[in-house]
Amino acid sequence: MNFNFNFNADGLIPAIVQQVPTVEHPYGRVLMMAWMNQESLEASLNKGVMHYWSRSRKKLWLKGETSGNVQKISRWFVDCDRDALLFYVDQVGGACHTGFESCFFSELDREAQPLPIEEKALFDADEVYKKSER
Amino acid sequence: MNFNFNFNADGLIPAIVQQVPTVEHPYGRVLMMAWMNQESLEASLNKGVMHYWSRSRKKLWLKGETSGNVQKISRWFVDCDRDALLFYVDQVGGACHTGFESCFFSELDREAQPLPIEEKALFDADEVYKKSER
Repeated sequence: MNFNFNFNADGLIPAIVQQVPTVEHPYGRVLMMAWMNQESLEASLNKGVMHYWSRSRKKLWLKGETSGNVQKISRWFVDCDRDALLFYVDQVGGACHTGFESCFFSELDREAQPLPIEEKALFDADEVYKKSER
Repeated sequence: MNFNFNFNADGLIPAIVQQVPTVEHPYGRVLMMAWMNQESLEASLNKGVMHYWSRSRKKLWLKGETSGNVQKISRWFVDCDRDALLFYVDQVGGACHTGFESCFFSELDREAQPLPIEEKALFDADEVYKKSER
């Protein structure tokens, strides 16, 4: 597939992943940001669930492979510079390897100090991740 | 200010910018992604409006400097790996230099072909940007 995107020097493009609105989730919470390459883009579009390129493990990464917390793709968009992607997904379980719904669970104040976290984790991360998949 | 973030080799961290929910905008649309360094983070927090690092112009970039389309910061978050930021902002006018509300105005189909754009630009980009600010 010819994407005609502006991949970076490593052949990667950032993907922002946002909850598509549902009755339970009217606000489109941003769940995570990860990196995609040509291979992970093709796998995502062919299978209908998000695949990334794991920069730490240097391999294709099916999100939810271990946890079952897959991200079903609803819609997707490219930005005006063609160097960033946005996916609307329906997230099974939580997106974050820590158990939270979103990886952006830590709010900061104007001095960059963490605010108390009031939401609860959706799953027990120790239970779910016996292996290293994140 | 000591941010304790995982900046990349160029001293940058990606910032995802999302419309904070308002009566007119109940869904939190993702407006853009740009890069920040230490200096742009400090300027953003001190002034309360988004500043980025322009990689093309290699300088501090106050979003809205030319257009007036500033982004007033409401809340901000760091992700679990401390290598990506999320800002909730109230966007004046449109975020995109093309005149659209969001830089992610181009939706793609499963073959990565563009779908027709049904929304209208919020402003005339040629009119607004006499200079190169984006």
